[in-house]
Amino acid sequence: MAVRIEILKEDSRTRARLGKLHTPHGVIETPVFMPVGTQATVKTMTPEELKDLGAGIILSNTYHLFLRPGHELIREAGGLHSFMHWDGAILTDSGGFQVFSLGDLRKITEEGVEFRSHLDGSKKFLSPEIATQVQMALGSDIVMAFDECTPYPATREYAKASLERTTRWLKRCQETLTTTDRQALFGIVQGSMYEDLRKQSAAEITELDLPGYAVGGLSVGEPKELMYEVLDYTVPLLPKDKPRYLMGVGSPDALIEGVMRGIDMFDCVLPTRIARNGTALTRYGKLVVRNAESAHDFSPIDPTCDCYTCKNYSRAYLRHLIKADEILGLRLMTIHNLRFLTNLMAEIRTAIREDRLPEYREKFFYEYGYLK
Amino acid sequence: MAVRIEILKEDSRTRARLGKLHTPHGVIETPVFMPVGTQATVKTMTPEELKDLGAGIILSNTYHLFLRPGHELIREAGGLHSFMHWDGAILTDSGGFQVFSLGDLRKITEEGVEFRSHLDGSKKFLSPEIATQVQMALGSDIVMAFDECTPYPATREYAKASLERTTRWLKRCQETLTTTDRQALFGIVQGSMYEDLRKQSAAEITELDLPGYAVGGLSVGEPKELMYEVLDYTVPLLPKDKPRYLMGVGSPDALIEGVMRGIDMFDCVLPTRIARNGTALTRYGKLVVRNAESAHDFSPIDPTCDCYTCKNYSRAYLRHLIKADEILGLRLMTIHNLRFLTNLMAEIRTAIREDRLPEYREKFFYEYGYLK
Ligand SMILES: [Zn+2]
Ligand SMILES: [Zn+2]
Repeated sequence: MAVRIEILKEDSRTRARLGKLHTPHGVIETPVFMPVGTQATVKTMTPEELKDLGAGIILSNTYHLFLRPGHELIREAGGLHSFMHWDGAILTDSGGFQVFSLGDLRKITEEGVEFRSHLDGSKKFLSPEIATQVQMALGSDIVMAFDECTPYPATREYAKASLERTTRWLKRCQETLTTTDRQALFGIVQGSMYEDLRKQSAAEITELDLPGYAVGGLSVGEPKELMYEVLDYTVPLLPKDKPRYLMGVGSPDALIEGVMRGIDMFDCVLPTRIARNGTALTRYGKLVVRNAESAHDFSPIDPTCDCYTCKNYSRAYLRHLIKADEILGLRLMTIHNLRFLTNLMAEIRTAIREDRLPEYREKFFYEYGYLK
Repeated sequence: MAVRIEILKEDSRTRARLGKLHTPHGVIETPVFMPVGTQATVKTMTPEELKDLGAGIILSNTYHLFLRPGHELIREAGGLHSFMHWDGAILTDSGGFQVFSLGDLRKITEEGVEFRSHLDGSKKFLSPEIATQVQMALGSDIVMAFDECTPYPATREYAKASLERTTRWLKRCQETLTTTDRQALFGIVQGSMYEDLRKQSAAEITELDLPGYAVGGLSVGEPKELMYEVLDYTVPLLPKDKPRYLMGVGSPDALIEGVMRGIDMFDCVLPTRIARNGTALTRYGKLVVRNAESAHDFSPIDPTCDCYTCKNYSRAYLRHLIKADEILGLRLMTIHNLRFLTNLMAEIRTAIREDRLPEYREKFFYEYGYLK
């Protein structure tokens, strides 16, 4: 099997697990946050910088690479790892989410989804088979099933039909993927916010005995409490010996809450997107470096942070770069935010190891300002 | 004296010199190309990356920093070196060039230049005294005199009046600069394309016995042959024991030709600007990586180049990044182009050392395609 998780410890008071994710491109300590490299690059960063920050696995997007530069070009380059000069692990999403959110004029049939490219309006088609073949060309370590990420809110009827199609599509993905020695297919539990539908979906997909499972259809606009409730009843339906991935979640509180509910893997564009917008994540909450308060502040974003940015640059300089639209500003902010998250995950892992995750949560939430 | 040049060797067949520029922030081998860091950052690059490429001195712009973030803020930060985390040498221009080229609705008097900021249209004023005081706040190693870069073409009358004002302004800069123990004022020879005016200007400014001299008013639209002709009769007017700086020149042919005419220092935004536009400098001429020919080309920009970009990335990947507007593309292209120029200057220095500069020029021009 290409990918497996080794569970080192289960927390006694929560569902959190400490583990190691074994992949063809390295072993990754879990729980882990995966930076997003949509277009075969984690925006502003080199692979070496990602490694230095402690990232071992990144996510890239099938939809974007399918449209540009095209998966055949990446196959020619020897796969995505070689194309983008990243020798760590890669998870690719299936394009399902983007087809439904970015593609214009989509037409969904049992066969797949026809849509217009957001780049040039040309007509394109993705199906379980094609999405899987594209990911085979990319050569990612983890291949996500082509699903429909059920929008929120959804009626029970819509959610049921959607999850059942996702199961049928998953089987077609499984039949297509012939490279299971080096690529692992993850299935995705759907079912919106309906407990019985989540049960039905989990039962259907875990029956296929896949190397990993994701919880999809969350972080799509629902209240966080509702997301946590869904995780409370969904995660226990997934096998303990397989990795569990919560898609599209990357805010500090949700990372901690997700871990406590048994999630091993997370991804989200938010930390890198807000970085480029001038907002830093810190132990004491978000800091809008762009704001006037930083103008004459010659201290780093976070004096306790060990990142390159905090060791060498002041808030005043960062603010200047951001206001002057200088690329170095985007780089330095991204470095800090990603380091903040890799640090946070490392602290979470240490807290699990030392049996103090609930206490860690309490302290983090207090300092960050979630409890104010 | 804050800055001095040590001449190690004079070429026997050309006016080229090999030297070491001693500054308060390090010793720089000359002839040297200075990357441009307009807004207190060499676009896309960290200072460590610049050092790795072999850069020891950069140029920054008084005009831009005066307007944003303001020189008082940079003074508060402990000067420009500290503000931008660069411990190498810095040369700051005076703002004269930008006031005349970027400032709107300028009004020139003997006192100075009133202009409108290109950022917000607010009314600003720069004079020899203010431009020097701003550079004192910035703490640059080399302070350029506030001059008028005479436009091309200019009538003899205009050029004469302009150079004479530049001389009068230079004296006011010299009187203002009280930090000569750590900052060196360079005067600028003007006189447009008139040999007698260049002689008059050189005589007037060298009389002030400054630590360095620049040739200004070139590379402003005139044919290259004319620029070389002006250098032929202007450079010999400058003292041999002082550094000589040719402003705004950075194309490979002009660097070599400038060196052969006795120039020690160069700067230009072009190599970094065309990099961001998708054009690479190579031994065999310019390569437009953006073009379709690179789409399936998995070789590096230049297989003989030792830069990070050429060691790790293909033309196909770079083209993808550029077309997808990814910042990493701008970074990688900039790294290559700057390394190309630091390599070129190193080769020029070796050629001077080994008494084969004219032969080096011949070979370079042939390979680059200038002679085709
Ligand atoms: Zn930091
Ligand atoms: Zn290179």
